[in-house]
Amino acid sequence: MPREEDEGHLAYPSEVTAARQTLARMDSRRSSYTGSSSEEDEISPREKSQRNSKGSSDFCVKNISQSAFGRREIEIAEQEMPGIVALRKRAADDKPLKGAKIVGCTHINAQTAVLIETLVELGASVRWAACNIFSTQNEVAAALAEAGQPVFAWRGESEEDFWWCIDRCINTENWQPNMILDDGGDTTHLMLKKYPAMFKMIKGICEESVTGVHRLYQLSKAGKLTVPAMNVNDSVTKTMFDNLYSCRESIIDSLKRATDVMFGGKQVVVCGYGEVGKGCCQALKGLGCTVYVTEIDPVCALQACMDGFRVVKLSEVIRQVDILVTATGNKNVVTRDHMDKMKNGTIVCNMGHSNTEIDVNSLRTPDLTWEKVRSQVDHVLWPDGKRIILLAEGRLVNLSCSSVPSFVVSITSCTQALALIELFNAPAGRYKSDVYLLPKKMDEYVASLHLPTFDAHLTELSDEQAKYMGLNKAGPFKPNYYRY
Amino acid sequence: MPREEDEGHLAYPSEVTAARQTLARMDSRRSSYTGSSSEEDEISPREKSQRNSKGSSDFCVKNISQSAFGRREIEIAEQEMPGIVALRKRAADDKPLKGAKIVGCTHINAQTAVLIETLVELGASVRWAACNIFSTQNEVAAALAEAGQPVFAWRGESEEDFWWCIDRCINTENWQPNMILDDGGDTTHLMLKKYPAMFKMIKGICEESVTGVHRLYQLSKAGKLTVPAMNVNDSVTKTMFDNLYSCRESIIDSLKRATDVMFGGKQVVVCGYGEVGKGCCQALKGLGCTVYVTEIDPVCALQACMDGFRVVKLSEVIRQVDILVTATGNKNVVTRDHMDKMKNGTIVCNMGHSNTEIDVNSLRTPDLTWEKVRSQVDHVLWPDGKRIILLAEGRLVNLSCSSVPSFVVSITSCTQALALIELFNAPAGRYKSDVYLLPKKMDEYVASLHLPTFDAHLTELSDEQAKYMGLNKAGPFKPNYYRY
Amino acid sequence: MPREEDEGHLAYPSEVTAARQTLARMDSRRSSYTGSSSEEDEISPREKSQRNSKGSSDFCVKNISQSAFGRREIEIAEQEMPGIVALRKRAADDKPLKGAKIVGCTHINAQTAVLIETLVELGASVRWAACNIFSTQNEVAAALAEAGQPVFAWRGESEEDFWWCIDRCINTENWQPNMILDDGGDTTHLMLKKYPAMFKMIKGICEESVTGVHRLYQLSKAGKLTVPAMNVNDSVTKTMFDNLYSCRESIIDSLKRATDVMFGGKQVVVCGYGEVGKGCCQALKGLGCTVYVTEIDPVCALQACMDGFRVVKLSEVIRQVDILVTATGNKNVVTRDHMDKMKNGTIVCNMGHSNTEIDVNSLRTPDLTWEKVRSQVDHVLWPDGKRIILLAEGRLVNLSCSSVPSFVVSITSCTQALALIELFNAPAGRYKSDVYLLPKKMDEYVASLHLPTFDAHLTELSDEQAKYMGLNKAGPFKPNYYRY
Amino acid sequence: MPREEDEGHLAYPSEVTAARQTLARMDSRRSSYTGSSSEEDEISPREKSQRNSKGSSDFCVKNISQSAFGRREIEIAEQEMPGIVALRKRAADDKPLKGAKIVGCTHINAQTAVLIETLVELGASVRWAACNIFSTQNEVAAALAEAGQPVFAWRGESEEDFWWCIDRCINTENWQPNMILDDGGDTTHLMLKKYPAMFKMIKGICEESVTGVHRLYQLSKAGKLTVPAMNVNDSVTKTMFDNLYSCRESIIDSLKRATDVMFGGKQVVVCGYGEVGKGCCQALKGLGCTVYVTEIDPVCALQACMDGFRVVKLSEVIRQVDILVTATGNKNVVTRDHMDKMKNGTIVCNMGHSNTEIDVNSLRTPDLTWEKVRSQVDHVLWPDGKRIILLAEGRLVNLSCSSVPSFVVSITSCTQALALIELFNAPAGRYKSDVYLLPKKMDEYVASLHLPTFDAHLTELSDEQAKYMGLNKAGPFKPNYYRY
Repeated sequence: MPREEDEGHLAYPSEVTAARQTLARMDSRRSSYTGSSSEEDEISPREKSQRNSKGSSDFCVKNISQSAFGRREIEIAEQEMPGIVALRKRAADDKPLKGAKIVGCTHINAQTAVLIETLVELGASVRWAACNIFSTQNEVAAALAEAGQPVFAWRGESEEDFWWCIDRCINTENWQPNMILDDGGDTTHLMLKKYPAMFKMIKGICEESVTGVHRLYQLSKAGKLTVPAMNVNDSVTKTMFDNLYSCRESIIDSLKRATDVMFGGKQVVVCGYGEVGKGCCQALKGLGCTVYVTEIDPVCALQACMDGFRVVKLSEVIRQVDILVTATGNKNVVTRDHMDKMKNGTIVCNMGHSNTEIDVNSLRTPDLTWEKVRSQVDHVLWPDGKRIILLAEGRLVNLSCSSVPSFVVSITSCTQALALIELFNAPAGRYKSDVYLLPKKMDEYVASLHLPTFDAHLTELSDEQAKYMGLNKAGPFKPNYYRY
Repeated sequence: MPREEDEGHLAYPSEVTAARQTLARMDSRRSSYTGSSSEEDEISPREKSQRNSKGSSDFCVKNISQSAFGRREIEIAEQEMPGIVALRKRAADDKPLKGAKIVGCTHINAQTAVLIETLVELGASVRWAACNIFSTQNEVAAALAEAGQPVFAWRGESEEDFWWCIDRCINTENWQPNMILDDGGDTTHLMLKKYPAMFKMIKGICEESVTGVHRLYQLSKAGKLTVPAMNVNDSVTKTMFDNLYSCRESIIDSLKRATDVMFGGKQVVVCGYGEVGKGCCQALKGLGCTVYVTEIDPVCALQACMDGFRVVKLSEVIRQVDILVTATGNKNVVTRDHMDKMKNGTIVCNMGHSNTEIDVNSLRTPDLTWEKVRSQVDHVLWPDGKRIILLAEGRLVNLSCSSVPSFVVSITSCTQALALIELFNAPAGRYKSDVYLLPKKMDEYVASLHLPTFDAHLTELSDEQAKYMGLNKAGPFKPNYYRY
Repeated sequence: MPREEDEGHLAYPSEVTAARQTLARMDSRRSSYTGSSSEEDEISPREKSQRNSKGSSDFCVKNISQSAFGRREIEIAEQEMPGIVALRKRAADDKPLKGAKIVGCTHINAQTAVLIETLVELGASVRWAACNIFSTQNEVAAALAEAGQPVFAWRGESEEDFWWCIDRCINTENWQPNMILDDGGDTTHLMLKKYPAMFKMIKGICEESVTGVHRLYQLSKAGKLTVPAMNVNDSVTKTMFDNLYSCRESIIDSLKRATDVMFGGKQVVVCGYGEVGKGCCQALKGLGCTVYVTEIDPVCALQACMDGFRVVKLSEVIRQVDILVTATGNKNVVTRDHMDKMKNGTIVCNMGHSNTEIDVNSLRTPDLTWEKVRSQVDHVLWPDGKRIILLAEGRLVNLSCSSVPSFVVSITSCTQALALIELFNAPAGRYKSDVYLLPKKMDEYVASLHLPTFDAHLTELSDEQAKYMGLNKAGPFKPNYYRY
Repeated sequence: MPREEDEGHLAYPSEVTAARQTLARMDSRRSSYTGSSSEEDEISPREKSQRNSKGSSDFCVKNISQSAFGRREIEIAEQEMPGIVALRKRAADDKPLKGAKIVGCTHINAQTAVLIETLVELGASVRWAACNIFSTQNEVAAALAEAGQPVFAWRGESEEDFWWCIDRCINTENWQPNMILDDGGDTTHLMLKKYPAMFKMIKGICEESVTGVHRLYQLSKAGKLTVPAMNVNDSVTKTMFDNLYSCRESIIDSLKRATDVMFGGKQVVVCGYGEVGKGCCQALKGLGCTVYVTEIDPVCALQACMDGFRVVKLSEVIRQVDILVTATGNKNVVTRDHMDKMKNGTIVCNMGHSNTEIDVNSLRTPDLTWEKVRSQVDHVLWPDGKRIILLAEGRLVNLSCSSVPSFVVSITSCTQALALIELFNAPAGRYKSDVYLLPKKMDEYVASLHLPTFDAHLTELSDEQAKYMGLNKAGPFKPNYYRY
């Protein structure tokens, strides 16, 4: 099923799915770097006959002739993804993925292209489809195809195209996949249902979306998961960057780009003090806002207190705040009743999960007037003239009105590559047919790949110190339950 | 074994043992509130015949006549321990510890007296000894004895006294203990060795020190632990306050009280970016220091980068820093070689663990001169006149030169009380003969008891929201692996 | 002379001229709210015959029929300019400008329209021209004309048009101006030169640009200034917002919009620690950057130290920084030699003054290649492949890549209105023919008008307290030399 | 008149007088370093016959034999006063005070001894008395006398002694003073009244206290000031450190030492947002407090808003705050009515000015009970058991419960020395018989002397840049009205 909206609803607070990140990233890129696609012809790529310069036609993209432009995009992305490029260099000789045959299904854009080409350099052979019908950067797909990768993807696939592309990756002559890199779970499920024999030959699955992970846990519960799977969505380093560090910057960026609001002196309520909420609060406080927090969990509430935020019920401050930010992962956290009480000019946005946190549907009543004042910004007018400024119609404002830094994508990509390496090379028995988190040592390795960006110099344990601490000098350095 | 110094060396970064906290707290109290003990007579309490006003003589304290003064101390402590007092009120009717017979062995001071009397109000009967030969507040012990609690403890016990006191708690007529509240593991071990039959009747052990927990895990590994034990030392809420929130304030307080240093503009290196290091860095940055961090763990190093600190090797900055703080839990992090390179006037202190982080012994060489300039402050002079300011001879400076807020003790006490309640009331089979962490729901309850102090108002989930999140409305609200 | 670029170079650190602010603001508005102007016809407004709905033709705008759209723009702006609207209400009955005949020459856009209509509501009659040939919002000019204000302005005036418009404001039948509100000094100078008799009748001039103020001081020195003038550019409240508070937000916004850079962990050098530099440093530190400062003034350098920033020479850190920001007001602070030493990917931008701080001309040599990657972003490539990211070609990045909040414009507008009121109503003798700063009491009044936005409640002195302090209860509250 | 309490009440917000600083500093020193003075004999120094080792008896101190200990105190102080020591070195060859004959009257302690000996090294000859009857460090006075300085001071002078000592400095054979360094104005006034002829020969007065400055301005107004005087109390650099930077640290230190309060999560109201208030707010916010501000001045109120603080009337938050800090310079800012409304356990302290801000007298009523719980800490009990914690009985808590860093004293001392140099060397006519602020260039020089402490490297203007800015390369760098 070609997803446009990730509807997973696990009990995590404030997850940002990588799927959406990549989508937004691509949108931002597109408007910046690539030309309009309005001139693209209407012939389906499936009906075109295309060959790359080496004569191969084992791919299906919009227009192979755009490959040079796509190559430049990939080169620029490499400059902003130091970790994955470092991994490529460090592991180039080992070829830890030699023999791996990976079916990939992710967004296809400059950043994922860097990941795909890294996997190939590490020894893998790959076939790749898009996990989203709208997010493919056509010129990047062309560049991959020109470089010899069998890519089946273009922007604006039909649903039928979507499944056809995945099928073309899985089912081909003389190539039997043994690994899956999935984003949303569609490739996993197609293979499981349509090619069960082939699925049994898979050595491991790497999944990075909330939805896909949820589906894997359900499979596992149902006893249908016959291969080990790595949940990279919840790896420590990746989560930290996806949530705390990304959102700390994107809340500012999103609000500013959408509304030009001045932060100094504003009263803001942030619903939820998980990692996303913490990031939002820290950034807003840093720019001179007075921030209130709502929480359901007393531990997080106590943290908010100790960090200097008043913990309130939403109803206590709803009449006075200038900005409301949701970051709970829950639904209907902001109701029509709340919005009826807001003062004129209040900005309302969602940094949390999906589009459920603000009850936007409750605003679609005859007594209220919607004015779209620019892309992603609606003014909702009450009969008395009150005006609420709603961003991105309640969808994730950080993805709609900001962009995900390449550095964050680099961390996710490294995590995925290492998960594949681990699963492919693990000795028999290390992993059973279950869903695993990335081993802490790998998480630490992802982190270490990104330290040179900051010119950060790690201290090494002496033998004596390692012995005193009961640690291996190469890590892992923390017990599994460590909270960072 | 009557401990004066906790020598546990687990692989945790920067643990602060509750044992030491209480000790330091008491010291601070003593100097503030209580008169000098110089006039105390030299007769051993064991040789005195004392009775409380109700005629009981089932106790052994220094001087029962001091009880009124001790009672006032306890009353003041109650005002500063809102959580434990709230627990007392909420559970007073339930008497969840009715039938519990608790042998306790902790520091004995105003704060622990509040805990002890809370346990009694919740239905328990108790017998109590001191876990440290120097830390007992005699007047508080007297107040407990006057109130009818069998207390066996005084400041300045001999080692033989120490074991005699514990023995008198365990082994008495007509009273068969079924719970142990231990701090250091001495009661547990005495009972296990000397009264093995009695030990088998125990329903649960609650242990709060690093050392005691370490000994429990060793017992468990060796198959000798025949009862469930609760490791309250590592409960989430307690750890957060012991480390991050306490140290954020005590690093400032310790340095200021010991040296009157002005923080603005100073260069500081903090070794270790665990919870203690994070707290130190945040506070020092907040007062205008430039802070450098050393780390062995790439994940923590990356966190330091994202929080705005340069991650360096100690040797890179050792010549330029004004203040050096250790918070690693490791040994010999600061060596003589480092100290040889420091500039004149550098302040060196340890916030981490035990007294191993700074190699203080390496400074006890004939070429260096030590000058004690005041309590806890030594100037070490190099032959060329260079002067290093060493605090607390490398022991924990936050305990030597600052004090632990009662609020933090309140959190620890609640955690202990809830652990006892949980173990005492758990249905058969919930806990086996192993070492457990406090259930998350209890951790959340401890937090909730302390929210009113901050006038913090928790939001409740609606039925619909709880269902959407897959949560119970009363918690627990997070999966076990949640990192806060 | 129709200015496009303000070339004033006074000895102030880091001034932002109001002229440019308004320009940038307008640009931002235009792209957001108003349609493209591509369809506008080519007939000069001077050749068109236009009448407003009341029959008046005493104006000259692009297209009177656009007035409804312009009116909506003005209404939106009013919502974001609480101070000036409050002033309008408070003084509506007093009509403190009754009898004032003001020739105005400013940018013409929604925000200035609010100012103009406020002056009228306060009793003034006005005639208005544009101070910049490119910055007029045509639909706003139309709305003003429709409302009966004699406006002479359109986007894309020729230089001749420019002077014609101003002349039409000054020289008209039955209307003798007695006040000037100027932005750049062109109206003042035209009147002085062409209508010296009329100039002598003027009661006061209010000037808000660096350039205009500079010209007034020169006139004054030369003994040619025959009327009192108010330098509103340097009023305390206005300057604070123009520099510290605006730049604290716009440095983040500018860098993010232009480059999508992630701030966490980045090394930044800020040249200059005046108000603009302070704002930049505070914001960047708050988002996790390590910030270095360069300074020439030891007092500011000491402030930087105490605020936790390392004070360095640029050459010491130029090889390691990721971002360089200038905020000095000086020239050639960043030279080609510096840029030769930067590492790959360094972002270079100017927050200070004019376009002189970065020696951009030194980059226009044959060995370097410029690539424009998007509007306001150039990549300059060195022969070895090194890439420097130059923003806005060294012009003010906060104006080129961000926008000035309406709140800041509201403060400037209030300051202008109060300066006019003060000059118009001052008793004879209070002001001589010189250049004055706004009286502190007026500055305080501007501030007080904006407090309700933040729901801030001022405390009033009791009689006893006022006497003790030697203050009037209504202010001013500080001596003139007070540094805030 | 020997002052114990400075009662000056100028219209400055939150001044801290240097007099008190030095006093508190000395108290802190005394308790740390020097032994008890209880053994001191009861014979008046005036009746003793003492000689130093060179045979001079032109001094009067408690006990010349303590000089070695005093010398060590002075040496330690030198290490902590980098600026004044640097000044000594830089100017040693120039001897800019050659020929100066200075009568000094200040506190006499290790820090002022460093100043006195610096003046001598720069060429001056001096005679010195104490400005306070209780603050003299006897051993330091002895060390100065031993080194040949005619010092007349001891701890515990009678009022008659006090004036006798000053007289002995002024009126001696073969030595005609030409400069006065005063702290409080007593020497100035004694000379003016008793030795008017001598007073007319004075080339300049340097005064550092609020009171002394106030008296000078009164003299000037009354036309009685016949010599130029320098008000060093209000010099930019000194004020910055006395107020903002000192108080940022001492509010934390004072509260912690006095009460062991935990800051995290506490609600605090700070009355007054001048420099002292700003410092307090910044520090408290940095440690996790929620801070409210009260203000009478709309400009400062707006600053508080933009810095993220809610601006309230005291009555709005008085029932909920945990800590109240005054920093207004005003009187009765906190009344009995306010204190009646506070909740149990509220801490009340004054960081502002004098002892007037909190109406402490209103608490001395029969219905309230005072309990002194330790030095500087009183609990005031209401009939219902409510307990307010009052620090230092409403006097300046930063001086009573904390200490002033030597670095701050170093800045003050440099300022005084430079003021003397400037007045002594100024060409005829530069200064008239009036009260002056230190020239900005001197202020900048004081700052520059302290930069090496922070290893801060100043940038020098190029000739081209200096010309562009219209500045001298050596400064001053800012116009007089610059606000920093």
